[in-house]
Amino acid sequence: MDILFLGTGAGMPGKIRNVSSLALKMLNERGAVWLFDCGEATQHQILHTSLKPRRIEKIFITHLHGDHIFGLPGLLGSRSFQGGELPLTVYGPEGIKEFVHVCLNVSGTRLQYELDVVEIEEGLVFEDGQMTVETRRLEHGIDSYGYRIQEKDKPGMLLVDQLKKDGVPPGPLYKEIKSGRSVTLEDGRLIIPDKYMGPPQKGKTITVLGDTRPCAAAVALAEEADLLIHEATFSADNPQMAHDYFHSTTAQAAEIARQAGVKVLILNHISSRYTKEEADNLKKEAEAIFTPVTLASDLMEFSV
Amino acid sequence: MDILFLGTGAGMPGKIRNVSSLALKMLNERGAVWLFDCGEATQHQILHTSLKPRRIEKIFITHLHGDHIFGLPGLLGSRSFQGGELPLTVYGPEGIKEFVHVCLNVSGTRLQYELDVVEIEEGLVFEDGQMTVETRRLEHGIDSYGYRIQEKDKPGMLLVDQLKKDGVPPGPLYKEIKSGRSVTLEDGRLIIPDKYMGPPQKGKTITVLGDTRPCAAAVALAEEADLLIHEATFSADNPQMAHDYFHSTTAQAAEIARQAGVKVLILNHISSRYTKEEADNLKKEAEAIFTPVTLASDLMEFSV
Repeated sequence: MDILFLGTGAGMPGKIRNVSSLALKMLNERGAVWLFDCGEATQHQILHTSLKPRRIEKIFITHLHGDHIFGLPGLLGSRSFQGGELPLTVYGPEGIKEFVHVCLNVSGTRLQYELDVVEIEEGLVFEDGQMTVETRRLEHGIDSYGYRIQEKDKPGMLLVDQLKKDGVPPGPLYKEIKSGRSVTLEDGRLIIPDKYMGPPQKGKTITVLGDTRPCAAAVALAEEADLLIHEATFSADNPQMAHDYFHSTTAQAAEIARQAGVKVLILNHISSRYTKEEADNLKKEAEAIFTPVTLASDLMEFSV
Repeated sequence: MDILFLGTGAGMPGKIRNVSSLALKMLNERGAVWLFDCGEATQHQILHTSLKPRRIEKIFITHLHGDHIFGLPGLLGSRSFQGGELPLTVYGPEGIKEFVHVCLNVSGTRLQYELDVVEIEEGLVFEDGQMTVETRRLEHGIDSYGYRIQEKDKPGMLLVDQLKKDGVPPGPLYKEIKSGRSVTLEDGRLIIPDKYMGPPQKGKTITVLGDTRPCAAAVALAEEADLLIHEATFSADNPQMAHDYFHSTTAQAAEIARQAGVKVLILNHISSRYTKEEADNLKKEAEAIFTPVTLASDLMEFSV
């Protein structure tokens, strides 16, 4: 899985950082891309990547502030215009249905694909054989959610050498054993799969948070995640402003990462008030509390 | 007055042309800018210009297709965020109120200035001492309007040399005469302003059309205008497609310019299907019927 950052700024677009959006690319895993948030001009950012809008299967909205949703109607329309025919589901807080419905309706946008808009509450919002997505409410001026995206554990590798050693002939039997079924050989022996499978491959866990003050829900969502993407709208010396505007500082984001015991922290949602040099310092502030830290930038890609 | 093109493409954003928006800059004339249409990422385009969102006094929407309105909520919010305090009026077809209201409301966008949204019908939509704006309905898949923006005639120059020659002493009297009032000199002579004023300066007329098939309303709106900005979504050899999609060809736009007797035609709303070389040809197609023609491009400025 890869994360592709499409917009890493806060509040308003700037020349260097666009407003919020990121793509979770699972092209090998499920031939699909999931978006998290869709600020204005997300589709413009996509023009500068290899990402195909028709591959976007789900869009998860963390909260309804304009810098996280105003690119959604345009992207939905363009996905259709560019030949997207597979169904798409948008998840978001209460109000997302009205927003999408009114924007598409007023503009006469007719989609050539099935669109489902799901208003979320805390808990499990999606599960299939491969993935689960859970949400919790964070602490922001309006309802803002974080998402914990978990890949389910995958079965271990088939221990082919061991099978051969035990005289199990290669062929369709191997597929049976790999799928977890016991098989009886022609010589009457019963082959139990457990003995011939390596350890299960642990699925990855990624936590993507909406705008928030530091809070217990953030720690819970991020617990032992492979990657935590946390907002860091303010530098470490501005906790009062962060509190007043319902945001976090770099240090607060790092403290959440430390408490949750994540593998990697990415700082996101960076205010345009910080110059490039100052932005480098934001990373250092977080590193004083937790490592490793990466500072998100537009069009940056990160493998998980 | 200057026209600054912010987006000159059709339907979807591309790498070279953004979706529709243009600014009528009247900074010397009234310290204000008027926008016509506001496609997604119009505020992003503005970042690359000297235009100040707080100076935007009015936004005229031609029609509600997404490529003409999806940048409006973001721009309205950013104008407030950047300290815009002067009132702003948005004019557009029926539905614009619901769109603006729902987008601002759902996203919790609170404006620090007074916003008025006016749903237009054919006729005079605005008039003050300096300008009039009239609309007519064009021929498109949904209600689409064209705007005729007329600057009122300005009084002629004060003929200072003539006044001096006739022994009228310079001073506050000159201001009186310039403002059109008769004055009596100390020697008893009555000075009638008409004799001391040059011919009135003709106000400029600019016609900005929404998406449309060629139609009589377009000719009426453009009659003897100093500048006609007409869509040209298709090349001259595609009249059938233009008709089917309720658009115009380059040749049709030029024919409207010819019939209306305008001074200059600018072709706008250019499909991304045309390469740069093909786009140059679009201009030639129009020039076979009418001159002078300019092909709009993003961030191009044109003085009227």
